[in-house]
Amino acid sequence: MYRCGNLKVLISTFPFAERDRTPLDLLEKYSINYVINPFGHKLTEEELISLIGDFDAIIAGTEPITDRVMAHASKLKLISRVGIGLDSVDLLSAKNRNIAVSYTPDAPSEAVAELTLGLMLASLRSIHVANNEMHCGEWYRHTGRRLSECVVGIIGVGRIGSKVLHHLSGFNCKKVMLNDLYITIEKESDMDVEWHTKDDILRTADVITLHVPLTRQTKSMITRAELEMMKPDAILINTARGGIIDEVDLYNVLMEDHLGGIAIDTFETEPYKGRLATIDRCLLTAHMGSMSADCRARMEIEATQEAVRLISGETLISMAPLEEYDNQR
Amino acid sequence: MYRCGNLKVLISTFPFAERDRTPLDLLEKYSINYVINPFGHKLTEEELISLIGDFDAIIAGTEPITDRVMAHASKLKLISRVGIGLDSVDLLSAKNRNIAVSYTPDAPSEAVAELTLGLMLASLRSIHVANNEMHCGEWYRHTGRRLSECVVGIIGVGRIGSKVLHHLSGFNCKKVMLNDLYITIEKESDMDVEWHTKDDILRTADVITLHVPLTRQTKSMITRAELEMMKPDAILINTARGGIIDEVDLYNVLMEDHLGGIAIDTFETEPYKGRLATIDRCLLTAHMGSMSADCRARMEIEATQEAVRLISGETLISMAPLEEYDNQR
Repeated sequence: MYRCGNLKVLISTFPFAERDRTPLDLLEKYSINYVINPFGHKLTEEELISLIGDFDAIIAGTEPITDRVMAHASKLKLISRVGIGLDSVDLLSAKNRNIAVSYTPDAPSEAVAELTLGLMLASLRSIHVANNEMHCGEWYRHTGRRLSECVVGIIGVGRIGSKVLHHLSGFNCKKVMLNDLYITIEKESDMDVEWHTKDDILRTADVITLHVPLTRQTKSMITRAELEMMKPDAILINTARGGIIDEVDLYNVLMEDHLGGIAIDTFETEPYKGRLATIDRCLLTAHMGSMSADCRARMEIEATQEAVRLISGETLISMAPLEEYDNQR
Repeated sequence: MYRCGNLKVLISTFPFAERDRTPLDLLEKYSINYVINPFGHKLTEEELISLIGDFDAIIAGTEPITDRVMAHASKLKLISRVGIGLDSVDLLSAKNRNIAVSYTPDAPSEAVAELTLGLMLASLRSIHVANNEMHCGEWYRHTGRRLSECVVGIIGVGRIGSKVLHHLSGFNCKKVMLNDLYITIEKESDMDVEWHTKDDILRTADVITLHVPLTRQTKSMITRAELEMMKPDAILINTARGGIIDEVDLYNVLMEDHLGGIAIDTFETEPYKGRLATIDRCLLTAHMGSMSADCRARMEIEATQEAVRLISGETLISMAPLEEYDNQR
């Protein structure tokens, strides 16, 4: 069993314990030393290397925890991810180095699903564009579309996609088209759903939302070819991961006046500083999917509890599943 | 029976037939002369007086159709409102002058309800604030709230409020509190609802949305006293009518750091040029509640059909109900 007092945790995710001190109280209760990300933003690989030193565990965001980072982390025994995605962690390298990896797969899903609906409704009605205009003293009544006029396509119907589907049940969508590796749902509330290929959804849907993890299979799943399959006035939403959509191709088709709008919460490089921000019909948010007060607190507490378990010599209970390792093979 | 060819319709609402020419086709089919609002914005009383001359019918927006306007309209026989609200029309004066008033009460309600949900989710998660920051190259992850953490209050549970309630059924709100003159609903889908006084809702709800008409009873229903009853981080949404909330009081309490945010689609004076636009946490849109392509088309077609009925000597089928006249007494 580890002596807690001598052990150190790096909290690399940012922000942390902003509205709820419970995870810090927990670390302090167990006399665990901790350092919170002093950079105040998502760390780069180099920044993380400069910090990682002799920490025993990381409570991690989505910063890159590469083989190089781990090579600099001589004492690291646990990467405890605040969140669901494991694309930022080199799992096979962690395995080779006997570093355990845990995550909090359920905690963020409800907050991500709600943000997705907000982005969907805002995009359909140009709420973000009108708000900017109003704040500049301009008055223009945008004509938009209602969900009941729209075919909505959900690509990825796991924890988050299925919650998006549930939220849609109160909107009488024209049709909801689903795609996943596995067919899991036949009906949601009073709403019939249909399973289709990705290409069918791309060609047919008015609104398409992505809820797949970032893996070798889904990386660049949406490039120019897929974007061009979409209807000229379709809306594309990504609250999943940057890297699933090719951002250069997306920018280019938007500049060619293709697509009615996009809403993007996750980017290839974060913080995002790219050219999508020059296009009004791009609704952009700062990787805020999980950022509801309750979900964020739950994620932070669960990830901290896992670090406490490791340091107390208890069994970890939320380790990354084997298929996540297979995804990276 | 009127000879259509000699009769003239003023289309004072703007925009009109922007995406669907059906209402214009209909007027042309009946050889009805028409003029579309040449100002390209919501008309003032003076502008309307300068236009109204010898028109037989107006297909009207929310511009003020006062006794003075009608005094300048020597031939006017019908005011056909594109929309539900009749607060812009002096109904008693119209009655005294034998001018019929029709409206389209059902057509806009679904579009208003969806916009309301969009404004609610955007406000709860600061989508509009983040989007502005992202377009300025700033990255800040706002912490927000989910509807399932929130008590939602709906004041006014008629055509629109009841649809807002239906949309909420897919979000597992902590509680939904309703207020109306009449108790009409006990349950919505699987969701229990509770009826409360306005004051109870103001004091308790995290999100409050207004769906009452503007009448003498509801004018300035929300002033400083009511705003101060609300929780310091509550969100207030108005897609109903300007004038229900006192805009000066609203600005003042926001400047005193009261309220988490507001979302306003309707204003005392439109186009709106006021000071709420200087406050970031005010999500503002340009009276776009009814502006979904299908609802807008349906409203315009229904209002035009009513003008055609008048001019063809047929019975009007969507006249303003008696209680609307009583509301103005």
